[in-house]
Amino acid sequence: MPDIKILTETELRKLVPLDMSAIDCVEAGFAALSAGTVEMPPILSLDVHENNGEVDVKTAHIQGAESFTIKMSPGFYDNPKIGLPTTNGIMVVFSAKTGQVEALLLDNGYLTETRTAAAGAVAARHLARQDASRLCVVGAGAQARLQVTAINQVRPLTHVDVWARDSEKAEKAAEDIAAMLGIETSFTHQIEDAVCAADIIVTTTPAKEPLIFADWLTTGQLVIAMGSDQEGKFELEPALIARADYYIPDRLAQTRVLGEARAAIDAGVIASDADFPELGDVVAGKLPEYDAADSLTVCDLTGTGVQDAAIATLARQRAEAAGRGATFTS
Amino acid sequence: MPDIKILTETELRKLVPLDMSAIDCVEAGFAALSAGTVEMPPILSLDVHENNGEVDVKTAHIQGAESFTIKMSPGFYDNPKIGLPTTNGIMVVFSAKTGQVEALLLDNGYLTETRTAAAGAVAARHLARQDASRLCVVGAGAQARLQVTAINQVRPLTHVDVWARDSEKAEKAAEDIAAMLGIETSFTHQIEDAVCAADIIVTTTPAKEPLIFADWLTTGQLVIAMGSDQEGKFELEPALIARADYYIPDRLAQTRVLGEARAAIDAGVIASDADFPELGDVVAGKLPEYDAADSLTVCDLTGTGVQDAAIATLARQRAEAAGRGATFTS
Repeated sequence: MPDIKILTETELRKLVPLDMSAIDCVEAGFAALSAGTVEMPPILSLDVHENNGEVDVKTAHIQGAESFTIKMSPGFYDNPKIGLPTTNGIMVVFSAKTGQVEALLLDNGYLTETRTAAAGAVAARHLARQDASRLCVVGAGAQARLQVTAINQVRPLTHVDVWARDSEKAEKAAEDIAAMLGIETSFTHQIEDAVCAADIIVTTTPAKEPLIFADWLTTGQLVIAMGSDQEGKFELEPALIARADYYIPDRLAQTRVLGEARAAIDAGVIASDADFPELGDVVAGKLPEYDAADSLTVCDLTGTGVQDAAIATLARQRAEAAGRGATFTS
Repeated sequence: MPDIKILTETELRKLVPLDMSAIDCVEAGFAALSAGTVEMPPILSLDVHENNGEVDVKTAHIQGAESFTIKMSPGFYDNPKIGLPTTNGIMVVFSAKTGQVEALLLDNGYLTETRTAAAGAVAARHLARQDASRLCVVGAGAQARLQVTAINQVRPLTHVDVWARDSEKAEKAAEDIAAMLGIETSFTHQIEDAVCAADIIVTTTPAKEPLIFADWLTTGQLVIAMGSDQEGKFELEPALIARADYYIPDRLAQTRVLGEARAAIDAGVIASDADFPELGDVVAGKLPEYDAADSLTVCDLTGTGVQDAAIATLARQRAEAAGRGATFTS
């Protein structure tokens, strides 16, 4: 059995920061998805009811790639009560030639956080107005901070307004973002005002009822909804999906089941078989008529296996170049 | 992050031999399945077309268990050309309390082979005549040898007849089984005669067309079909499923898609929603009227996540008791 490379969270955080390379590699993954050169089966999901936990398994294979990755993402929602983070994670990298295990990325969810935020930046790069500079972030968790960090790299921001159900957390997030990125920030009790004033709105909550309403929004705005990734979750009033000029899912087959499209289908405002261009199609230039200034756009990110494949490949390339990681010999 | 225990194939082979404990632990897994205390989502399957490879991901959680296991089983069918085994595999064990990774079982498929053979023994223990002693094994691969090894523990065998498409391989398997178990064995060119003469027939091939025909079989015989585990595979003439007094799947929801039931449904000999008792139901005593001597029975084994959960738990308990395994500290 060949040696296995093991990379820890500490190493991976150093090797794969949330920078333009991470954004570009996730963008390339979406382009491959659009080109039809990606094999990406539906998500496997296991519930551990008695402990308020679940685990999602995602994978994808980009044709011709030397390896593929299977990612396991547990979410255990009572963990904070015992001082542990809610999410964990591990990625297993296999040779696409032989199926043998090549590497274990013990990232505890770090690579997932990074590729998730990177997808927000890909959406902003291709769907936001060129002059977009004011962002409203809904939610005050880790992804709120990371989405702002990522989007700021493709649309330099001048002001970030944070809303969260818990105003103290919103205030703290606004402070953190200001300190991290040197951007003017504020927190708000008035979500509607913040949404109305923003060029880009990014929603990062696990909400199961709408936080953003259709009639708050107008032409030229982009909503990036990345919170919903499971049946039952949604952050946008379903009418907004119908009202938007463009609804752009990361993967339509997924958003119909796990994303904002699911809620819109359930509400009867879009058909269950309604077709929409995906983010990868936009990246690949298949939507040449798209004019951000003239469009109200919703981008729905549920998280795809191809993003994991892309970020895992980047991590391994960087680890190899830097000679990092432990080697486990059987 | 807590330490992770890493166990290699060499260690796992020593810790978890294919013995009565392995059979009993898999049997207990099936019983839990029947009791409805197991969460077992559908299999995730990824194709790597260009390299004639695929990987299945299986998982299950037995309610109340301290951990759960996600198993990845790659099968790369061109591997033998470069001197590598077709199948590999790794199991990741997570805390069912927190979702944190507890252990990596680098078994290269060994535990899968073991729990698969153990399921054959569970089937024989509950479905074969008490006096069953003559076995016909169809196929001459690793599972052919392992199924005989397992079944021999619950129904001591006096004669094993091996048939395979390649007679040389059948001869070699017959020799190996005789040497391993001290049983009288033979190999045959006449599959029909061997099947007719056997008390138990176990099929272990990746066939995509029937090898065993309905009118070869009669009351008192048990067919254990464990080869089919993917769409398109089947080993039994569909009419046999309809003709058998009992058709016992390991998991009906799976065999309808991946097993002999799939072929029988496609052939129109059973309804797609036809209901059958599962192996776990038999183990749990829910089929008290069953009389092996008076029944022609087919047991269809496609391989279930609960078997992986059971064998992984046994492996970890044994490793802990013996103080085996490397410890990886992040």
